[in-house]
Amino acid sequence: MKLSQAGELRLIRSIRKKFAGTRPPVCQGIGDDAAVVRSHTPGGMDLLLTTDVQVEGVDFDLRYCPFHQIGFKALAANLSDIAAMGGIPRFSLVTLGLSRHLTTDLVDELFSGMADLADAYQVQLIGGDVSATPGAMFAGVTIIGAVPRGRAVLRSGARVGDQIFVTGTLGDAAAGLELARSGRFGSTSQLQLIQRQFYPIPRVREGRLLAGKGMASAMIDLSDGLATDLRHLCDESRVGAEIEAEAVPLSGPLREHARKNKKNPLQYALTGGEDFELLFTVPKNRGTRLSRLAAREAVRITRIGRVLPRSQGIRLLDARNRIRPLPKRGYEHFF
Amino acid sequence: MKLSQAGELRLIRSIRKKFAGTRPPVCQGIGDDAAVVRSHTPGGMDLLLTTDVQVEGVDFDLRYCPFHQIGFKALAANLSDIAAMGGIPRFSLVTLGLSRHLTTDLVDELFSGMADLADAYQVQLIGGDVSATPGAMFAGVTIIGAVPRGRAVLRSGARVGDQIFVTGTLGDAAAGLELARSGRFGSTSQLQLIQRQFYPIPRVREGRLLAGKGMASAMIDLSDGLATDLRHLCDESRVGAEIEAEAVPLSGPLREHARKNKKNPLQYALTGGEDFELLFTVPKNRGTRLSRLAAREAVRITRIGRVLPRSQGIRLLDARNRIRPLPKRGYEHFF
Repeated sequence: MKLSQAGELRLIRSIRKKFAGTRPPVCQGIGDDAAVVRSHTPGGMDLLLTTDVQVEGVDFDLRYCPFHQIGFKALAANLSDIAAMGGIPRFSLVTLGLSRHLTTDLVDELFSGMADLADAYQVQLIGGDVSATPGAMFAGVTIIGAVPRGRAVLRSGARVGDQIFVTGTLGDAAAGLELARSGRFGSTSQLQLIQRQFYPIPRVREGRLLAGKGMASAMIDLSDGLATDLRHLCDESRVGAEIEAEAVPLSGPLREHARKNKKNPLQYALTGGEDFELLFTVPKNRGTRLSRLAAREAVRITRIGRVLPRSQGIRLLDARNRIRPLPKRGYEHFF
Repeated sequence: MKLSQAGELRLIRSIRKKFAGTRPPVCQGIGDDAAVVRSHTPGGMDLLLTTDVQVEGVDFDLRYCPFHQIGFKALAANLSDIAAMGGIPRFSLVTLGLSRHLTTDLVDELFSGMADLADAYQVQLIGGDVSATPGAMFAGVTIIGAVPRGRAVLRSGARVGDQIFVTGTLGDAAAGLELARSGRFGSTSQLQLIQRQFYPIPRVREGRLLAGKGMASAMIDLSDGLATDLRHLCDESRVGAEIEAEAVPLSGPLREHARKNKKNPLQYALTGGEDFELLFTVPKNRGTRLSRLAAREAVRITRIGRVLPRSQGIRLLDARNRIRPLPKRGYEHFF
């Protein structure tokens, strides 16, 4: 069977099967935002390990993506994975596949984009590998992070009755991508959407707060769209979920963009990827503490639904209180 | 300036400059086989981190490389980097860029190749990222290893007067590549050379022995050929070196292959890459202990030269005791 028929999920499932059964000190292998290696000293820090690759023509397009942006975002996507575990990013390794015809100036810009973000998050670039490639360019980043022993927030911790939250607003990055592709933009609100697509802010501070206070029971970052990423979280936790359409936080610029393009803004939030916000669940009895924490720390969070038994599936409650299944797909690599 | 003019070394130098000045706990950043992160507990283990990517059309060719072999070797190249630090490989992360037209069976073979080697070395695959690519396929591996605190063997520790050694025999992999490319082979000795190109054995056990006994002052793995890798070691240690042509260990199959092709077998050893043997230096007064260790542990090592002051450059003493400069280049990515 070809990958285009099998799809990404089935491929990853078969890889997981092959490498199933992690042994100590690994307490979380394939299947979360990052792997977790347990510290052997009580009071120590667990290691978090994650890797992500951005490919030309798939994740970025040299016709409208500046090299500085490619470097920035390649690192941002990984920092977001560490954020989703509630961890602190520490070190990074970079692999690049570059055309021989690129100029050193462009490669320099790419590294400047990485360095800018690395400095801001105090992540040290400590190694890498650079290769020529005759095909599509790529930029892979591996991040090593840390989290207090046993405190990593997994995808698998959601329980029936938990409330579902997200940080920030959703769908902006997908709208930004449409604008960047079209080449027709200029208003401040359009630039704001493009900024969210090109220069996403990994929610590291937010993730740490939510993990540090034992607040979140499960967490994932929104890289492939709410529909897909919520499904990942539910699959790992073996639960269902209900999302309230009216509750999903949408920005003013997104609403404006959707109106102009005669689209439903919610669609961007559900199926558009790369917002790099955090999706997390919180036990009901921690609701008040969470509100207080969010207010004190100036973190924008929004309750968007609740965790249901697995048998009830993953569903959407629309504005007129009608229940329908949540669309299955966000971004899919092999279609 | 284009990368094809600047070359790999200059590119890496500019990256190092940009990310210079590692802060604790990093004690070795870019510029060695792996980065070293210092353990904060005395008696603990330092972390080793390394990454390497294999690209279709550059590092492997789908016309004659089976998928199983690509997976095996992508992991082997990284294990070899950990070996060169004297470390123990522990965990790995994998990134793949795959064509949509590949079959799941082929991808499965690739992972089987990795799994076979991972099992043999007790390395756990704990994460990764799979992306579609419209261009050349690639396989990137990151390995996390460990070494007793402060015992990693760096490239920078060679001192004037040290003896230079290698494990195994050199040049076989390059001859194997010629044979695989030609498609004309069949004898046992030819298959042996191809085996060394396709299924290299990372010298992890050897590396640990040499580091564990405080034997090696500096070490590097031979991935780009003796000429290039010795230069890396000398640059980092700020020394020169003299290699005795007659002492370089060459296998029977390589000599036979070179004779048939009317080539100098030494040339394969000097400029041919991917032997994945270890090149290391040892202070003169440890010579006897080293010989005993090698005999007891059945490790094949050969003394091939000595470390000189930097001002004397890197030179070759040929069979007639004539001194000439060592050729500058092994494998270069951007030419």
